[in-house]
Amino acid sequence: MPIFPAPIEKLIEDLKKLPGIGPKSAQRIVFHLLKAPAEQVSALSLSLQEMKRSVGRCRRCNYFAVGELCHFCADPNRSHAVVCVVEEPSAILPVEKSGEFKGMYHVLMGSLSPVHGVSAEDLQVDGLLERIREGGVEEVIIATNPTMDGEATALYLYRLIKPLGCRVTRIGMGIPVGGDLEYADEVTLARALIGRRDLS
Amino acid sequence: MPIFPAPIEKLIEDLKKLPGIGPKSAQRIVFHLLKAPAEQVSALSLSLQEMKRSVGRCRRCNYFAVGELCHFCADPNRSHAVVCVVEEPSAILPVEKSGEFKGMYHVLMGSLSPVHGVSAEDLQVDGLLERIREGGVEEVIIATNPTMDGEATALYLYRLIKPLGCRVTRIGMGIPVGGDLEYADEVTLARALIGRRDLS
Repeated sequence: MPIFPAPIEKLIEDLKKLPGIGPKSAQRIVFHLLKAPAEQVSALSLSLQEMKRSVGRCRRCNYFAVGELCHFCADPNRSHAVVCVVEEPSAILPVEKSGEFKGMYHVLMGSLSPVHGVSAEDLQVDGLLERIREGGVEEVIIATNPTMDGEATALYLYRLIKPLGCRVTRIGMGIPVGGDLEYADEVTLARALIGRRDLS
Repeated sequence: MPIFPAPIEKLIEDLKKLPGIGPKSAQRIVFHLLKAPAEQVSALSLSLQEMKRSVGRCRRCNYFAVGELCHFCADPNRSHAVVCVVEEPSAILPVEKSGEFKGMYHVLMGSLSPVHGVSAEDLQVDGLLERIREGGVEEVIIATNPTMDGEATALYLYRLIKPLGCRVTRIGMGIPVGGDLEYADEVTLARALIGRRDLS
């Protein structure tokens, strides 16, 4: 016999499908919601539907958008001359938070991964190449992850974009700020040494 | 400028109100739901509404119920002679899992707590006393938490119930099974010594 009434068991099951939510936290959330005002629960229920209904992809860069263009592509104050290429929409958040970038984005929706069966056709690259061919793009910063797949994707993009006469750069790799050399792995340290800069 | 479209920001805000969900996990859940099939999201949204709409309190013991009585009170195979008293509905789960109890429950909906301003009037005790007065209850097991508030509540209930001619017991306290004496605190160990049993 289940310990909770069916509607509670059902909600626990649905919550457990979410990332980072196990049986214990699902149960904790349900107990919280049982005590919470009905308005809070219906607000959450509505937000879920509304998000799924209204949020699509930007026609130009694949980032989340309500309508045709995302608010980066639609922003007249941002430069169209530099495009930062990321694997997933979630990677845009840290780039924005750095405060160092005021250009456009392009989301590949993945990275080349023979292991996971992701090949070049699965990536969203055509739109990026088209934007470059249309002119106005001076630099493409490749900000794919510093992993084997991300590196392979960076090289693949470099070979596609370079012939179009555009500057192609890769984000710097090395010791994270605040990190400790003692705990740095050898590959990161090798990258940090290759990427050394003159002090001025 | 927010980094995400408004419906995403709204959902993140609503999710952050749930226990154990911070900004990072809220964002992770939203990214997951953006990729998930629309059916999964509407199922979750519906489960939330349905749970809040249909689940109330058992008229007799205050546990969660769809309808008048919870499935413990409505179960003809459980004994009405023993009532286990707990502070919160969530405490019933571990008692059930122990497999050692086949009686009825009573949920107090809290514990006496001068610090948090919870006094005797705030607890759901009348229903329990009424059940005992009606007859048929032979033993009340007080399973409030082994905290100062839980102990005070146990003593308070003992004084109310004992005069009604019913056996009143308290769950055993001591070293948890699988625990290590080396790490036991002195209060728990004192309880374990007081609660010692003859080996047979």
